[in-house]
Amino acid sequence: MSTDVPLERVRAQIGAVLGAWGLAPDLLETTVEAMVYADLAGIDSHGLSMLMMYEGGWRAGKLDLRARPRVVREGPATALVDAGAGLGHPAGVAGMRLAMEKALAVGVGAVAVRNSHHFGALGYYAALAPPRGLLGLVTSSTRDVTVVPTRGTAPVLGTNPLAFAAPAGRNRPFLLDMSTSTAAANKVKVHELNGWPVPGGWVVDERGRPVTDPGQAMDLVWRRRSAGGGGLTPLGGTAEMASHKGYGLGVMVQLLSSTLSGASFSPVRNRTRPAGSPDDIGHFFLALDPRAFREEGAFEADADLVLDALRATPPAEPSLPVLVAGDPEEAARAARTAGTLAVPAPLAEQIRAICGRCGAPYLL
Amino acid sequence: MSTDVPLERVRAQIGAVLGAWGLAPDLLETTVEAMVYADLAGIDSHGLSMLMMYEGGWRAGKLDLRARPRVVREGPATALVDAGAGLGHPAGVAGMRLAMEKALAVGVGAVAVRNSHHFGALGYYAALAPPRGLLGLVTSSTRDVTVVPTRGTAPVLGTNPLAFAAPAGRNRPFLLDMSTSTAAANKVKVHELNGWPVPGGWVVDERGRPVTDPGQAMDLVWRRRSAGGGGLTPLGGTAEMASHKGYGLGVMVQLLSSTLSGASFSPVRNRTRPAGSPDDIGHFFLALDPRAFREEGAFEADADLVLDALRATPPAEPSLPVLVAGDPEEAARAARTAGTLAVPAPLAEQIRAICGRCGAPYLL
Repeated sequence: MSTDVPLERVRAQIGAVLGAWGLAPDLLETTVEAMVYADLAGIDSHGLSMLMMYEGGWRAGKLDLRARPRVVREGPATALVDAGAGLGHPAGVAGMRLAMEKALAVGVGAVAVRNSHHFGALGYYAALAPPRGLLGLVTSSTRDVTVVPTRGTAPVLGTNPLAFAAPAGRNRPFLLDMSTSTAAANKVKVHELNGWPVPGGWVVDERGRPVTDPGQAMDLVWRRRSAGGGGLTPLGGTAEMASHKGYGLGVMVQLLSSTLSGASFSPVRNRTRPAGSPDDIGHFFLALDPRAFREEGAFEADADLVLDALRATPPAEPSLPVLVAGDPEEAARAARTAGTLAVPAPLAEQIRAICGRCGAPYLL
Repeated sequence: MSTDVPLERVRAQIGAVLGAWGLAPDLLETTVEAMVYADLAGIDSHGLSMLMMYEGGWRAGKLDLRARPRVVREGPATALVDAGAGLGHPAGVAGMRLAMEKALAVGVGAVAVRNSHHFGALGYYAALAPPRGLLGLVTSSTRDVTVVPTRGTAPVLGTNPLAFAAPAGRNRPFLLDMSTSTAAANKVKVHELNGWPVPGGWVVDERGRPVTDPGQAMDLVWRRRSAGGGGLTPLGGTAEMASHKGYGLGVMVQLLSSTLSGASFSPVRNRTRPAGSPDDIGHFFLALDPRAFREEGAFEADADLVLDALRATPPAEPSLPVLVAGDPEEAARAARTAGTLAVPAPLAEQIRAICGRCGAPYLL
């Protein structure tokens, strides 16, 4: 059961809670937009429903909502931003904006962010680039350690996501937003809730064998009952299907996001820092101005040729046309910007409880 | 049957042929190094054996061996290089070196290359970065159109490869070099030569169905007997195993490599330009200086923590330890720099014929 809540009330609700927790008005506005983007794009796991996790981090004292992202190193084309253990969204927007400013000035901008927390859907930040005529690349490390390297039996990496956006002409911008694991942890949850078997190759057990039982998969990915063994596979799924490539991409994202910025590497952080320490995850933002390489408009015209050809690929099933990255999110947005968001009753109840605990009005 | 040929003779042989074709001495030296790197790293498909393809392109008049890479646009952090329809190796080295110079000056450098040809193994160019203390990212479009988008039945993309290298301290540099398809086209060839079934998910037919018969897979990927349908899958292999991610990465590589530089998009080039036109493929080079973000040495020390943890992952099979990207190439190099390269007899015969046709001495 769910209720259709007008979007403006969803925005107001998130803002009311974040405000009651002490987030400054400008950072609050930024965060509300980034969170609602995820809900509108159909990435429900990264929007409104994240308030529960943020409350936990805030009450545990590891998420500092008074923090303000601060530029601590800067050059003509690069910067390092310290998120101050605050929410990731304001730091993410600051990082991407800074990378874009530098790209508009010198053709390319690269910004690293350290000491951050969860910042929602990466696509939100990458998607800021095309309206300015820029390409955007965003990567992030994650708090949770869930992905098992190829040939291995225990998780060492997070789902280490990557997003890339590029402007087009007739077509809407290209927007790739993906984890470097085969499946997102949330997909395993959906399979368990529905009692569906998990496709072999999404999850391995503590001996590296494929798991298809949804309950066992949940234990391995979410409940960690197996004392650290097993977890999600890197993109590819099995060695035969080239999971070493997804594994390599996950390491690339780790090095770009956390090692470059000086943020934590989760397995080491979990072992060496006191429980309740900030997550200290890192993000990386790259912006490129095609006008530094070609005449204005040439990139967009040629991008159209690529995107048109992809959409024109004859499909195996006529009812399932070939899509381009960003299409599923756009379809979700088209369905939802009728002006309401369907909020499941259990989620609404949890938000009501959060409001009760922090004194914010309940608005859903 | 193969002959162990001293490496110096392999180098001299490649140089003698390229010289007879008219490649200038400095570009020749660069090209020999890049080609021998591939043979030493175990990427046999991209080294000495490429001379046959290069000869074909040169004799067809589409590969211009008198061309010299030329910087046609330049800013403080970016550049566009025109390869002049020459071999890709000199253009690739010029592109990566320029990106590195800019990174050493302003923290990041981004260089696009257009009007290029095949340039061997991407890892060679990315691997130039760590010895200078830099991170390197390299992408390239390809001439051949072999990869079928998720849900589709016909190829639209190439294997669009990506390489990433980063320096470490105790560990050798991290070096990822991968195509964005599940399998390389050459792997399909190896399966056919050996009569091994092709793993389901590597190749689809003209109706999008998985193919396991090695002969049929060869037809679809190499011999194109099916009038354009079928081909390689993007990384992931099937929709259920998230091939939309590999597909999205392939498009990202296409946009970064060819659309940004103004090089061709192969399906459009094949349709609109006369047969025998230059391949006009594009490459993209990014270099990042970690010293623009952190104190000298901090990146390398933290990279060691990541690489050490990955190598320490308990393996499913004790005889198959968990590796880090670059390890297989390093193992091949260790086995081969005993000073010789095993040259199969049929390859040696083809090289002898090339020498006969261009008047170069046969040295293998």
